[in-house]
Amino acid sequence: MEELFIGVDVGGMSIKAALVNKEGKIIYKSTKKVDAKKGTGPFLRDIRSLLIEHIEYAKENGFIVKAIGFGVPGIVNPTLGTIDFATNLYMEHVPLRDYLKDLNLPIYLSNDANVACLGEVRFGASAKGYKDVILLTLGTGIGGGVVINNQLFEGNEGKGAELGHEVIVVDGHQCSCGRKGCFETYASASALLRYTKEEMENNKSSLMWEYCKNDVNNINGLTSFECAKLGDPSANFVVNKYIKYLGEGILNFCNVFRPQIILLGGGVSNQGDYLIEKVKEYCGSRHYGYKNTPLVEIKCASLKNDAGVIGAASLAMEEFNK
Amino acid sequence: MEELFIGVDVGGMSIKAALVNKEGKIIYKSTKKVDAKKGTGPFLRDIRSLLIEHIEYAKENGFIVKAIGFGVPGIVNPTLGTIDFATNLYMEHVPLRDYLKDLNLPIYLSNDANVACLGEVRFGASAKGYKDVILLTLGTGIGGGVVINNQLFEGNEGKGAELGHEVIVVDGHQCSCGRKGCFETYASASALLRYTKEEMENNKSSLMWEYCKNDVNNINGLTSFECAKLGDPSANFVVNKYIKYLGEGILNFCNVFRPQIILLGGGVSNQGDYLIEKVKEYCGSRHYGYKNTPLVEIKCASLKNDAGVIGAASLAMEEFNK
Repeated sequence: MEELFIGVDVGGMSIKAALVNKEGKIIYKSTKKVDAKKGTGPFLRDIRSLLIEHIEYAKENGFIVKAIGFGVPGIVNPTLGTIDFATNLYMEHVPLRDYLKDLNLPIYLSNDANVACLGEVRFGASAKGYKDVILLTLGTGIGGGVVINNQLFEGNEGKGAELGHEVIVVDGHQCSCGRKGCFETYASASALLRYTKEEMENNKSSLMWEYCKNDVNNINGLTSFECAKLGDPSANFVVNKYIKYLGEGILNFCNVFRPQIILLGGGVSNQGDYLIEKVKEYCGSRHYGYKNTPLVEIKCASLKNDAGVIGAASLAMEEFNK
Repeated sequence: MEELFIGVDVGGMSIKAALVNKEGKIIYKSTKKVDAKKGTGPFLRDIRSLLIEHIEYAKENGFIVKAIGFGVPGIVNPTLGTIDFATNLYMEHVPLRDYLKDLNLPIYLSNDANVACLGEVRFGASAKGYKDVILLTLGTGIGGGVVINNQLFEGNEGKGAELGHEVIVVDGHQCSCGRKGCFETYASASALLRYTKEEMENNKSSLMWEYCKNDVNNINGLTSFECAKLGDPSANFVVNKYIKYLGEGILNFCNVFRPQIILLGGGVSNQGDYLIEKVKEYCGSRHYGYKNTPLVEIKCASLKNDAGVIGAASLAMEEFNK
């Protein structure tokens, strides 16, 4: 019987799960819409029923499930198997592993960006062949994952690799973490929207107004990038501002970790080569000791929407085989 | 015969070497004054003669030297055994290991702050029992060393852990690395002197003027700290400003690495408990997810002036026994 691993991508509005084989191929997957606001009890029951669905699918189709991995948007304790704190899930101190112990399967947890990075390294085309890899997911916030020497790096008690929460502007923009000037307040998709709105307020003749039909509610992550491609100077200003802050954060990780490659994921990374070329241009000659140090490769992440479940399954494979 | 390791602490004005045993005890040490400006040739000859002195001392006293470790203030390639770039040594692309091959001893190199961190973890009182440790040396610049899971972390090709070169103020103070706003331009001893001078210029009634006998040439790293202890408000302003930037950098490393402990070394760390208490107070509640994450301990480094040679010898022991 082929051995499979279940990867679970936990979100506040939906939970995705997939049966993944050792080659990182998805055999079966499904999504359950949830509402984390309804409380931890119903949420955990939803997780359980989704898992049972997958375990039964495996059984009926001649597979065997060996372990379950979770990617959680928040702070977890991988050793204890607990979700310590997750704002978007309205959870604090939830003993997830313990709750699922009757499934009689090993349960592993990590932060969602951590497992996504692991998944990219194991099964993504962009990170193939690299063993020192950083993933930045540019979404509402910035998630970070770090793989060092082919192993997931999580920090003491699994509480490190919070790459969105390094201050790059002391006394800067207020961050939800309590500090001011965190990287995620300057280089997340939310920051890009803020720059877009600010510039549109300052420049009523910007093409971006036309692009969003004169309604700021139509602004999204594409607005500035698409108008910049059309040659609008004010959109270009927004894009360059965003690239600068993103680049400064990336350069910090180059100097601190000196990975072989940095992958960009999340919504903003849909800009693909256009984004990557600009980031590379910004970072190209600025990293520490540049001509005497290896250039850090920068690429878009590969696994896109499946990054979460494949990453979580990768964690399960990894830990199960330790 | 007891086995010893030679640790070499390379500086632009002096080279220190020591014979160190497996317990981290210095059996013999000596220092050679050098002038790196005179060129790489004379500099390498000085290193060689210092090494021969130590090897002969060992031989005459019934010890056997097993390997040599170097801590270099600059960018090295640990694999190739080369000093790739070291401003203070006026060196670029120097094949140190190759030059010393006739000594018939294994030669290992790393950055000086890296080996100092390793030395603290192996033989320092402050880091005893910890396996995830960061060392920041607060001197002219800021050096950084990282030990993860009891192993030295150097980054790809040994070019990481440049903790002084993460930007904490985008578009901030010009750094020698080419970027603006690096941590070391805000929290090094040099930055402390800058803040001291600036405040004294702004406040002619500051006690700091009296402390340095009305001559700015007498300003040093003690000026602000000592006057703050005496209750001078302007000195206190300088100290608090310094602590804030130091604290922000430290918090970044808490979030990114989540080590168990951060050690402070270098000149500024001579302020001891007074400094540590203020840093702890600043960082105490600000790190990411603070009440749900382990508090990072902060202490002064232990090995002081011997950190360089003991660290370099630790590297030699470590690599030799791999």
